Amino acid sequence: MAKLLIKTVGIVGIGLIGGSLAKDVRTFGLAQRIIGWNRTRAHADRALELGLVDDVAESVEALIAQADLVVLAMPVNVLTEQLPKFLDSARPGQVFIDVGSTKMAVVNAVAQHPNRKAFVACHPMAGTERSGPDAALDHLFRNRFTLIINPEGSDPEALERVTRLWEAVGSVLAMMDAETHDQTAALLSHMPHVLAYALARTIKEAERNQALNARFAGGGLASMTRIAHSPISMWQPIFCQNKAFLLSAIDSFKEQLDAFRKAIDTDDNELLNQLMK
Amino acid sequence: MAKLLIKTVGIVGIGLIGGSLAKDVRTFGLAQRIIGWNRTRAHADRALELGLVDDVAESVEALIAQADLVVLAMPVNVLTEQLPKFLDSARPGQVFIDVGSTKMAVVNAVAQHPNRKAFVACHPMAGTERSGPDAALDHLFRNRFTLIINPEGSDPEALERVTRLWEAVGSVLAMMDAETHDQTAALLSHMPHVLAYALARTIKEAERNQALNARFAGGGLASMTRIAHSPISMWQPIFCQNKAFLLSAIDSFKEQLDAFRKAIDTDDNELLNQLMK
Repeated sequence: MAKLLIKTVGIVGIGLIGGSLAKDVRTFGLAQRIIGWNRTRAHADRALELGLVDDVAESVEALIAQADLVVLAMPVNVLTEQLPKFLDSARPGQVFIDVGSTKMAVVNAVAQHPNRKAFVACHPMAGTERSGPDAALDHLFRNRFTLIINPEGSDPEALERVTRLWEAVGSVLAMMDAETHDQTAALLSHMPHVLAYALARTIKEAERNQALNARFAGGGLASMTRIAHSPISMWQPIFCQNKAFLLSAIDSFKEQLDAFRKAIDTDDNELLNQLMK
Repeated sequence: MAKLLIKTVGIVGIGLIGGSLAKDVRTFGLAQRIIGWNRTRAHADRALELGLVDDVAESVEALIAQADLVVLAMPVNVLTEQLPKFLDSARPGQVFIDVGSTKMAVVNAVAQHPNRKAFVACHPMAGTERSGPDAALDHLFRNRFTLIINPEGSDPEALERVTRLWEAVGSVLAMMDAETHDQTAALLSHMPHVLAYALARTIKEAERNQALNARFAGGGLASMTRIAHSPISMWQPIFCQNKAFLLSAIDSFKEQLDAFRKAIDTDDNELLNQLMK
């Protein structure tokens, strides 16, 4: 990655993902300048203080006016609603990417947009349960997949720049259509998040009703409920947008859980062993 | 812990838990000699090679004949079956502890035994998904709870030695009865393990049926399924012995999961937010 990729990168949403990408863009010298904007002004100020960005834009519009590559790291419902408006103002050569966890809704929202080709839909399969600029990590994307969705909808040059960006930060790329993506994400990410939230709530309720002392928990429970600390404001719209695949994934899990429950209930150790294998 | 606690510690089952305790006993100088025995002879030889033990006993009986403190780190069904026989041969002052994840069965199995008082039932709430002597870790028990079950059933001097052993390796002690223990363990450990196994199987089945590519998974799924790599031979008897509390814990989880499912299905965002809080 000898050649400088981008003059100005603009990051809308300097949190875990946006902030981590900003760190890598700086580390690998991928842009001359990084500007940011955040709905929560205190987060934008903190991102500036942490050196994640060189400047904070006064508005999303001001950021878009200055940036050659715009990274939209925002809740998927806000993204879906606002992307058409952002694309309205796209300049020749300007590229927009998102990092959202659902793709059918956003891709459909801009399918007929005259500037659709300026948008490259991306989903880096990386993150933690933390949020905000202080959660940003170096090398978050290294050796993790970044899924590029419906690449045929994007301008080949835009696609080339975006794939080089992800490769430069160490990500492994895979291309797929939006429907395959949303089904894959439902099974590998969204449904497991629902399980983590439901498990955390089960423990809380047991503490309240049965005087369970959850302080005694070992590492297993912590590992199972870690992602239940993920922000609700980000996950609720994901569950909503990916409802059909998510419900189907939950039902697949429930079938397996019921098979385990039955094997335990009937002392069917042969079946239990087979299920656990 | 200035005073040497034990002349010879004998560890039956030199795996993750037994091996980690052996490491700490050596690190903190808690015994003059550590001997071990393992059902899988290769594991015993490996424990000797790793320096976890000073000697390998030819049989459990030979180990018990030499040890002042016997640590029984074995599957809970084997423990429950064999503890009465082990206690038959208990010498005055000799102490037996277990480290099993269920307690009602074992405590009931020896309730009327003339040497019951030589036994102190212990459950260190620590571990990983790995097994065997190579999985042994330094300081595994530090800052983790060790639950002492039905302490009134044990000889006060035996109890004193055992509590000092766990405190010496950094564990925090809590006393409780066997029923409270098994219900607590069902909620905090056994049910989460069933969920992890069921989730791992859901993903495997989806890979087989729907051409899902699970390589794309991020850290969330890995975190949720980590403990599904725990050995079946250890967990199947736990599920079996703690069936009643485990089924009840699974049903509590299913209720919560169904509440999430319904909130997602009916787009009830207010309820969903409340459940996720």
